[in-house]
Order: sequence, then structure tokens, then C-alpha cells
Amino acid sequence: MLVISLWGVWLELLEAIKGRRSIRAYRPNPIPSEDVERLIDCARWAPSAGNLQPWEFIAVTQESKKLELARAALGQRFIAEAPVVLVVCADTWRSASVYGLRGESLYCIQDTAAAIQNLLLTAYSMGYGTCWVGAFNEETVRPVLNIPRRLRPVAIIPIGVPGESPSPPPRRPVSQILHWDAYREV
Amino acid sequence: MLVISLWGVWLELLEAIKGRRSIRAYRPNPIPSEDVERLIDCARWAPSAGNLQPWEFIAVTQESKKLELARAALGQRFIAEAPVVLVVCADTWRSASVYGLRGESLYCIQDTAAAIQNLLLTAYSMGYGTCWVGAFNEETVRPVLNIPRRLRPVAIIPIGVPGESPSPPPRRPVSQILHWDAYREV
Repeated sequence: MLVISLWGVWLELLEAIKGRRSIRAYRPNPIPSEDVERLIDCARWAPSAGNLQPWEFIAVTQESKKLELARAALGQRFIAEAPVVLVVCADTWRSASVYGLRGESLYCIQDTAAAIQNLLLTAYSMGYGTCWVGAFNEETVRPVLNIPRRLRPVAIIPIGVPGESPSPPPRRPVSQILHWDAYREV
Repeated sequence: MLVISLWGVWLELLEAIKGRRSIRAYRPNPIPSEDVERLIDCARWAPSAGNLQPWEFIAVTQESKKLELARAALGQRFIAEAPVVLVVCADTWRSASVYGLRGESLYCIQDTAAAIQNLLLTAYSMGYGTCWVGAFNEETVRPVLNIPRRLRPVAIIPIGVPGESPSPPPRRPVSQILHWDAYREV
């Protein structure tokens, strides 16, 4: 089910959705900046409330900054081992300016998460491993990357050629999570 | 770039990411329950914090309930015109039980949003149109679908064969949203 394109291997959608794994070990191979641009190009096609696109992406390659990010993420050292560490920021002010508190606390979180999922799938289809890290101290990350008050760092995503090949973690069955016309405890 | 499978047309990932649109008009064609199950099957392969999978999906087909959902969503009437209206719930208690306030206010919102993006892409690849509706009164939706306190309805997603073919809304350029090693105002 592979489709070969001019710039590598393009995966069929369902294979990407089901085959993507969280990868926590990376080979040292560098990532060309064009590949990072391609990831962001796909991220930005996510839908967003009012098409506000309340997202900013900071691609970190400097060793010292990657180490500071790993420390801010409770010492998860694998983060610093990735050739590129992406920090995704939600523009809370942008969403709040139109939608108030609901924009700030819900929509811009959802919009950036949808963009991240596009990015994870695209990275996988390009042969890169990623891990969506949410456990970090936002206030520690801010000064490292000059993140202003209106932006909120919502995810740290190390990206690199996979150095491991984990099994898929179990998933709750469809019959347990899909309900018809009303919620029923299963 | 189409790959034909036993159960229809499978789209290449990037075509799905870039070709998906928000659709607000639907044809009356019914949606087989197997297709809804297939959408949920793809949604559940999104990553989630601690693999908690804090999501529940309520597929609404009853006319009276669809009308109540449309009313709860500030009267957006196109919602009731879709053959299936999906209400996605975040299990805030499930995430809070492991991660406290950050789980409840951030992770379970992100996890459900990533699952939704999988679902929107899959729906598009199956020929269905969707629209991620975030503007609705959560407390009005609860009693319609028997949603308990531990769940929070975070999105209403009408699904149907598209009755319109909108142009892609503009996107902020990559050069404006991608920053290297530190945030810089563009």
C-alpha cells in the first residue's frame, strides 16, 4: 500500500494512523530543514476555530536548548537526543480575541492538538519517529525560547529517525467507546 | 494517488490532510453503522497521555436529538441535516485520576482533539464531509445524551455525504509560523 513520490515514500492514510507509534529513541541522523518545513506545512492544514490558526512552532536544534527542554520535561533525557525538538505553542490571545475564555481554554488547545496529529502522521510517513510530550513545566520552557505571554507552550515533540520499534499499546475496543443516541456506561 | 481497497477508496495521507474541508451541507444519504464504527476505529489510534484513551463517542441519528444538538450549538441548523451527528466527550476524571488538573484541563482535551483529527481525515478518505463544531452549550447537550459529570462534551461533528465543495480557506505561510531555536515575532 505504498505510493512512491518524488520526495520519498507516501503512506496511505490508514496505514499512517494505525502504524504510527510514540518513539523515545532516535538515531543521530540530522533532519534537513526542508523536512521540518514539510511537517509544519502539513500541520497548518488542520482545521481551527474561525480559521484563526492559533499556532506557532519552534524547531530547536541547539544542544544546550534541547538539554534545557529535557530538564523542563521532568528530565526525560530522550528528548535531548533527537536531532530536532519541536515546541508547539498555542496563541491564547489570538483565540481569546474572538472567542473569549472558551477560545483560550478550549479552542486553541484543540486547534494545536489537531495540527500536532497531522504533524505526527506526516512525520511517520516520512520515516521519522516522534513522541508527543505533555509533561513539562511551561514556565521553565518560556525563557529558553523567548516565548511571550500571549503564547502557551502546549507540547514538546522530539523528532528523529527511530532507534526503536515498539509494539502498539492496547486500545479500548470500539464497542466500549461508541454509543448510539445516548451515553451508556459499558 | 488513489489506492483502491476492498472497502472503497483509500487516500494517500497528504492528500487527505490538504484536501479535507469543513463541510456544512450534506446529502440525505444514510451512513451505514459499519462506516461509523470504522471512523471510531481510526479515532482511537490517536496517541493519548499515559495511553489513557480518555474518549467516548456518541453517534446521534434520532431526529429529535439532532435538532436539540443544533439548538445547543447556537442554532447552527446544518448540524441537524447530517444523517449522523457525533458528539465527542473527554473523560476528564480518567485523565485527572492520573494527572490531576493538567490531565483534566489539558491532556484530555488534546487527546480527544487528536482522535477527532484522525476521524476527520478518515471520513474524508471515505467520501464523507464533516465539520468540527466547538461553539455549543455543554450543559444543554448533557441531558440530551445522558452525559454524566465525569465526561465533558468537547465537539459536535455532523457527518454526511458532502452537499457542497468549498474552496480551501487561506493558511498562514510556513515562514510566519515556523521559528528556529527561539520565538521571533514575524
